[in-house]
Amino acid sequence: MTLTARLASLIGPNNVLTGADAAAYGSEWTGKYHWQPLAVVRPGSTEEVSKILRLASETGTKVVPVSGNTGLNGGTAAEGALMLSLARMNKIRAINPAARTLTAEAGVVLENLHAAAAAEDLAFPLSFGAKGSAMVGGFLATNAGGSNVVRYGNARALCLGLEVVLADGRVMNLMNALHKDNTGYDLRDLMIGAEGTLGVITAAVLKLVPAPRAYATALLGMETLDQALTLLNRLQLETGGAVEAFEFMPDLYMARLARFRPDLACPFPPQPVNILVEIAATAPDQATPAPDGSLPLTDRLETVLGEALEAEALTEALVAQNSTQRRKLWEMRETAAEITLNETPIVDTDISVPLDVVGLYLERMQARMAALDPEAGIMIVAHLGDGNVHYTVYPSRDDKALIAATRAAIAEEAVALQGSFSAEHGVGLSKRPTMAAHKDPVALSVMRAIKQALDPQNILNPGKTIPD
Amino acid sequence: MTLTARLASLIGPNNVLTGADAAAYGSEWTGKYHWQPLAVVRPGSTEEVSKILRLASETGTKVVPVSGNTGLNGGTAAEGALMLSLARMNKIRAINPAARTLTAEAGVVLENLHAAAAAEDLAFPLSFGAKGSAMVGGFLATNAGGSNVVRYGNARALCLGLEVVLADGRVMNLMNALHKDNTGYDLRDLMIGAEGTLGVITAAVLKLVPAPRAYATALLGMETLDQALTLLNRLQLETGGAVEAFEFMPDLYMARLARFRPDLACPFPPQPVNILVEIAATAPDQATPAPDGSLPLTDRLETVLGEALEAEALTEALVAQNSTQRRKLWEMRETAAEITLNETPIVDTDISVPLDVVGLYLERMQARMAALDPEAGIMIVAHLGDGNVHYTVYPSRDDKALIAATRAAIAEEAVALQGSFSAEHGVGLSKRPTMAAHKDPVALSVMRAIKQALDPQNILNPGKTIPD
Repeated sequence: MTLTARLASLIGPNNVLTGADAAAYGSEWTGKYHWQPLAVVRPGSTEEVSKILRLASETGTKVVPVSGNTGLNGGTAAEGALMLSLARMNKIRAINPAARTLTAEAGVVLENLHAAAAAEDLAFPLSFGAKGSAMVGGFLATNAGGSNVVRYGNARALCLGLEVVLADGRVMNLMNALHKDNTGYDLRDLMIGAEGTLGVITAAVLKLVPAPRAYATALLGMETLDQALTLLNRLQLETGGAVEAFEFMPDLYMARLARFRPDLACPFPPQPVNILVEIAATAPDQATPAPDGSLPLTDRLETVLGEALEAEALTEALVAQNSTQRRKLWEMRETAAEITLNETPIVDTDISVPLDVVGLYLERMQARMAALDPEAGIMIVAHLGDGNVHYTVYPSRDDKALIAATRAAIAEEAVALQGSFSAEHGVGLSKRPTMAAHKDPVALSVMRAIKQALDPQNILNPGKTIPD
Repeated sequence: MTLTARLASLIGPNNVLTGADAAAYGSEWTGKYHWQPLAVVRPGSTEEVSKILRLASETGTKVVPVSGNTGLNGGTAAEGALMLSLARMNKIRAINPAARTLTAEAGVVLENLHAAAAAEDLAFPLSFGAKGSAMVGGFLATNAGGSNVVRYGNARALCLGLEVVLADGRVMNLMNALHKDNTGYDLRDLMIGAEGTLGVITAAVLKLVPAPRAYATALLGMETLDQALTLLNRLQLETGGAVEAFEFMPDLYMARLARFRPDLACPFPPQPVNILVEIAATAPDQATPAPDGSLPLTDRLETVLGEALEAEALTEALVAQNSTQRRKLWEMRETAAEITLNETPIVDTDISVPLDVVGLYLERMQARMAALDPEAGIMIVAHLGDGNVHYTVYPSRDDKALIAATRAAIAEEAVALQGSFSAEHGVGLSKRPTMAAHKDPVALSVMRAIKQALDPQNILNPGKTIPD
């Protein structure tokens, strides 16, 4: 019996795709990576995932897990490999509002988690542009970040328990809903961010938080990043750490936005530094309107902004007056991927540096790029509250060496400032050379030893994350 | 040359203790575990730790790391093994108030971290009774918890970067001060909580938080745990999550406290449920005294308590009026280890269960103990905000089987309620049978595979954490 026939006997022929049906799985949405999978399997349960992996392990078949496929680094590239789609495992198994936890399968779309939490007056705070397609399995496998990390942490910080199928098909049950559990090694956090190279995540217990009762959101324009940081620290102190987002869109971002999405153009003359800031209140005293209709939370934001305007540390400020205005400000930011990734050749990155050297990083990169490729186009957008910069370059010519040199320069300058060359998108295929160049070699050898111990045949997402 | 002579040539003869000098390292402070180490080495630098481990690896010498030695589970027991004390590595390498990070060596005492952070108007929020002796290396190796986890998380959540010496002496540099870094597997969190079985932690980058500007602290008495939980949720909502501690001391705790420390006796007639609650303000509007001297933060606490008294959901409430009163309330709680662990035979534990079943757990345990050993003494104290209960039993007779059955019952009932048999003290020696009985067998085999991959000779803290 052929492998596909055996797979069909395990999970039903309708859930084994080949040929043209499988071809739809053969690329990333950016179009940067293309491949021809051996076949695509769509299991409906953890047990089926286990059976598939047992068979793959017996036959030495390479397996690439995929859920929403919204990644940017080739993490799901699967030339000649079996793709294991988690999309049919899309059940929310349980929600426990008292304990503030939600148990979801790997195929649940992030936006559906948001809705399920909201129905209980709670929130699942992980959020990013691809929220309408990205799924639990993928955002955990890549330890995704996004816009609210400054307050709530990344995917890892929001996961309490995990169910993982190992390379040999055994199911590892770490489905814990506790905030304190020290029973041996932290295998949960090892699996999160491992990009499917150590096991296939099939379900998770996720942490919910109280839904903010009110938001105060503003778009700000100012001269320098130092002014922005001073304002961020001031707001954090004033609000007791209630800043939910602090997103940086420089003038060149605003120019590109106006070109591609005139409906979302900056409502004031773009400044060198434009910031989308959002603070949120869970305490009722901040969220209860005064007799005149004003909100204490918004008053607080406006007071801080007023002082900054007075001190000439702020040039423009537009505070959202209602939820429609708030949504529109957010759309300006969330359109980033769409307006950035529609041009080739492209070098897109997700570096991070300590907050106080973001400005220095951008200066150094300007000098680097002026020397390397003065005609290149540059796009920048950043989660400034985390020091996480998406520095994108459109090289002046489609030249492999130039593209590699550009990618290397972006990473080198981050590492030189004690930063990271990979903050939130995962390593996948595209950052493996950077891993080889910059990751501590002892750490790399420990990763290889763990990979070898847990997947000795190297069948799980082979060739990803760890450089050869 | 003998091993000790070779060690002396590496780090100086004064830093290699043997015989009577080494004997002082031969027990835990509780007196529950005793051993005779081969020798004790006291390296002064990461490089020296590396040399020691290289030699240990060459000679197949077993190595047990130790820092403050304040553990309770035999994690530092070292019969015939070389003890590696980190106590001389007690430098704070750097403090960066702007980035809110502190870099400390493994031998820095927790209380000294508190002082260093306070000098910058910041706080390192991990805290527990042994803070005057416990050190960085130990609280990271055990992923320690304590009283402020409800707000700030455990040790793992407060660590950004790590320096680790591996079994073969190689130094792994994960000394990162970033909040977002996805460069391969999460080796930091793997090392934290591994109790020195995968590597020796020599230094860490720790996260600081803004020092609260004001505290409101109270001792409360009420009838039921349900009333306590309702109050906790109410306070969390009212304050936007500013509850720093919510500690449960039942009447039997208060009775024991009055007996051993009459100076710390409960200031009101002890109730079935007594709670030490503390909320803290970083926002100035909560921490600035009104013209009449009252503090908005305290007013807010008193309003909530007043409503609960009115509704007869609260029987007693004593709000600390100054820092001396606050310290005294904390001392009542922090004396727990001292007043609990001074009797033998003893079964002391650190289980956790979901918050809403703590009461049910205690009921079930009462029934279990009534059947198992009706004459046993019971002591209970809990970090109620985390569902983390220290359930201590003084068996009626010094009988190994009875002691084992008691320990097993405490774990079984926690696991039956989806809880953990080990919340914050580590596994060490004492909880290995419980690991064998209750931890997912697939997870155990993954732990063994990782241990084998990173320490193939099994020289690092052998016989700890993972059952045979």
